[in-house]
Amino acid sequence: MIIVTAKMNLKPGKKDEFILKAQDLICATRLEEGCISYGLYASTENKDELVMLEHWEDINSLNTHMETDHFKQFGKIIKQLLTGKIDVKSYSVKQT
Amino acid sequence: MIIVTAKMNLKPGKKDEFILKAQDLICATRLEEGCISYGLYASTENKDELVMLEHWEDINSLNTHMETDHFKQFGKIIKQLLTGKIDVKSYSVKQT
Repeated sequence: MIIVTAKMNLKPGKKDEFILKAQDLICATRLEEGCISYGLYASTENKDELVMLEHWEDINSLNTHMETDHFKQFGKIIKQLLTGKIDVKSYSVKQT
Repeated sequence: MIIVTAKMNLKPGKKDEFILKAQDLICATRLEEGCISYGLYASTENKDELVMLEHWEDINSLNTHMETDHFKQFGKIIKQLLTGKIDVKSYSVKQT
């Protein structure tokens, strides 16, 4: 299994717009093969920080995801809502 | 490295109280040996769902954490704020 955390810092006041624009991506991604879970969470400490918490069956399903139109399209439309790069970490895991 | 996700469903209207009560736990935990990161996030879809996203150096530091007074104390005081059991999953990780 693969866990991905994608931490994003939003420009002040842009969080709600981001969350709205993320809905199509989230719905489309959850239908993808190998997607175990895919959810967007907001930090309870930093009002401008969001994290996408993702679980994938394997690296292939994650790589296929990153080639989808909805993923690429989303990457373009959110650029101007972010203060910088997305902090993406992926982990190959085994449940303990 | 160990990743832990602890998903919690709050009773309606109890989220802010929970977040406030979690501050002492979060501060104390971040000072523990082997704690890489420890953050509380709110679902952007379900207003009564929170997740604690944790990264630990190894299983020993996680086990030591679960024996601390601040962890045990927190477990007692939040019981009445939750609708049911905490969905805790832990993963042993190889970074990809």
